[in-house]
Amino acid sequence: MTVKVGLVGTGTVGGGCIDVFNAHTADFKTRYGIDVELVRVCARTSEGAEKHGVPELYTHDWHKITTDPEIDIVMELMGGTTTAKEVVMEALENGKHVVTANKALLAAYGEEIETLAAEKGCEVAYEASVGGGIPIIGPLKHSLIANDINSILGIVNGTTNYMLTRMANEGISYEDVLADAQAKGYAEADPTADVDGLDAAAKIAILASIAFNTRVTQDEVSCEGIRSITTADLAAAADMGYAVKLLASANRTDAGIDVRVHPAMVPLDHPLAGVNGVFNAIYVEGDFIGPAMFFGQGAGSHATASAVMGDVLEVARRIQAGEKPQQGNTYSDKLPFTNTDDLVTRAYIRFTVEDRPGVLAAMSAVFADHGVSVYSVIQRGKNEQDAAEVAYVTHSTREGDLRAVLEDIAKLDHILAGAAPTLIRVIK
Amino acid sequence: MTVKVGLVGTGTVGGGCIDVFNAHTADFKTRYGIDVELVRVCARTSEGAEKHGVPELYTHDWHKITTDPEIDIVMELMGGTTTAKEVVMEALENGKHVVTANKALLAAYGEEIETLAAEKGCEVAYEASVGGGIPIIGPLKHSLIANDINSILGIVNGTTNYMLTRMANEGISYEDVLADAQAKGYAEADPTADVDGLDAAAKIAILASIAFNTRVTQDEVSCEGIRSITTADLAAAADMGYAVKLLASANRTDAGIDVRVHPAMVPLDHPLAGVNGVFNAIYVEGDFIGPAMFFGQGAGSHATASAVMGDVLEVARRIQAGEKPQQGNTYSDKLPFTNTDDLVTRAYIRFTVEDRPGVLAAMSAVFADHGVSVYSVIQRGKNEQDAAEVAYVTHSTREGDLRAVLEDIAKLDHILAGAAPTLIRVIK
Repeated sequence: MTVKVGLVGTGTVGGGCIDVFNAHTADFKTRYGIDVELVRVCARTSEGAEKHGVPELYTHDWHKITTDPEIDIVMELMGGTTTAKEVVMEALENGKHVVTANKALLAAYGEEIETLAAEKGCEVAYEASVGGGIPIIGPLKHSLIANDINSILGIVNGTTNYMLTRMANEGISYEDVLADAQAKGYAEADPTADVDGLDAAAKIAILASIAFNTRVTQDEVSCEGIRSITTADLAAAADMGYAVKLLASANRTDAGIDVRVHPAMVPLDHPLAGVNGVFNAIYVEGDFIGPAMFFGQGAGSHATASAVMGDVLEVARRIQAGEKPQQGNTYSDKLPFTNTDDLVTRAYIRFTVEDRPGVLAAMSAVFADHGVSVYSVIQRGKNEQDAAEVAYVTHSTREGDLRAVLEDIAKLDHILAGAAPTLIRVIK
Repeated sequence: MTVKVGLVGTGTVGGGCIDVFNAHTADFKTRYGIDVELVRVCARTSEGAEKHGVPELYTHDWHKITTDPEIDIVMELMGGTTTAKEVVMEALENGKHVVTANKALLAAYGEEIETLAAEKGCEVAYEASVGGGIPIIGPLKHSLIANDINSILGIVNGTTNYMLTRMANEGISYEDVLADAQAKGYAEADPTADVDGLDAAAKIAILASIAFNTRVTQDEVSCEGIRSITTADLAAAADMGYAVKLLASANRTDAGIDVRVHPAMVPLDHPLAGVNGVFNAIYVEGDFIGPAMFFGQGAGSHATASAVMGDVLEVARRIQAGEKPQQGNTYSDKLPFTNTDDLVTRAYIRFTVEDRPGVLAAMSAVFADHGVSVYSVIQRGKNEQDAAEVAYVTHSTREGDLRAVLEDIAKLDHILAGAAPTLIRVIK
């Protein structure tokens, strides 16, 4: 029996998947006994189908894939959350298994999609939605299930990691490196999803849901991006023995879970500190395995296609064996979120202030008032007239107290100048 | 239906597995719908069963596990290749699935064991045999199967990595750090399996077999250990921008495969260079995914138990679902081994020589005679009377030519003093 596959979306990732079919379809049969065939591809134009050598498979109409009784597996690689959702839901309604790389769709509608899949006896697989080609969802759903996973720290957005790496290594400004990333195609014209952490938030929502066996959606992830980070912050971090990374983190304690995206200082001897450029890595801690890290290319046509096609082949293997779909976990733990105010962290906070007597005293008094213990403070003059930069590093502090400090300092008259303060957590 | 599990071996790893059962048996049911029960444990004495809180499950006789009709899965965690093989074969003969961490057994008898398993409709799972807790066999058998895996570089022996790390960072001699590793329980009284690379050879044989879909046994792995490496070699490597690691490598080219264990200089910006102490990491390159790395604790009671129990739970999931066992791959590619002489490498070679005129000229002439191009050479006096050390670094060279150089230099009269030359490949 040949498992028939339809593909919606022939862009970067979809095109890469066609390349995999072209390169390895015969290997899948001889090596693994998996007999798959790509039978139809859909996109707005036939350009992708032509470019990847399958013009005869092209259709303009995705319904011809989601409703074709011959097709067993639908690959949704168009992206977005509107038509993509229709494609996925119609495919499932018609009893087709779905493989997708669409993190935004899953982080918003995962429960609705997986519920329909279960009703219809279908599988939804999405290894490629997090970390590009890196196997992380498979290990979390299989190899690591003997553990309580207590912590995930991920560098899961290649664009921002590329930017932070070049800013740190070459002293290039945020604006210049963003323009460069856009020119290279790493960043969109509107970079919001990357630099504000939304892309990373969708990914950590997906990972946290699996690792904690509890549903987490993207809008439940608190999210701070990298727009306010300067090369001076990165230099200060390096002086202190840290690299700055945009971390997507998920932690579980007895009080509940917290799932966040924010820039963080990572000690230089931590395995995540050496993850540079467009590479991604996910660092997981379980109660039995201890720490483990998964590293690779977080994006790109062929790397992501590796993960998508891994899913297609696993689903095909089960279809051929007449086995039921595997959801993996049940999301039954329904863990509460912890009160963010009670979380404890060290923090680096840089203020741009007016350069006159009394400023440092007034600010430091606010830290003291809220019981926030300061580890170090550095004040530097700025080139702009009458402005200075003051960077505090705190000892371990409640997030609520940190926030109160920031609010009260903002209320001080004639203290802050220019941009809002920059806050970077310091992790162990 | 409850899947019943018997355990043979209650030492470090077996004990860790009992801990997992004690901690999480109820979670497996609620989170994943997997209903497993540990029903019997065997060891030479009841000490392990008592220590881990299951004295009532103890038996002295492993046949009571391998022949019990109630038992579905046998965990073989006793180690060794004699009784362990009997346990595994008898369990399979009796239609039981087997989970093991036994790399030596698999690297020697994998084909025989997996053939019997296939005949009996049973599964043999062995994630824990390589890299302790690190998921690597699962990803190779599942997530990554859309790729031709072309290269694996692994730091898969924690003992030697611990030794090399301390030698490099603290300048401690090989002898002292070995004694320390033995005192800490990282190294055996007879350290041969670790320091001569045999443990790593078993592991890379297993990984290469899966990744290349072709059988590789331990005795087909060429193997050089770390006994001759000195702190001076590590310092020279650091000066050149390299870390020295005992690498287990498997490479595939159009000419065939080569599978080896040897010390190697790894560039400091390579992800493997930062893998220190007892940690393990496996760096894989596929034709679609590009590079990916899997990092974690390569040994230890609880980390290894995480991998063993991941296998137990996957097998149990399939038993409950009434599914057939999964071998994953077919080993059908039957790739030839390349001629080692034709492999190309850069190399660091350090000779201990008599300290008198003409030595350097004579040696350098041998390099020239064999067309081995030298990138750098450093001669240093040694404290011992009349001895000096000469370290060559070559450009890319055929292994056959390197070997000829070593042989011809050994034949020169009154040149070599003391120990045999130290050879460390330099990887890109």
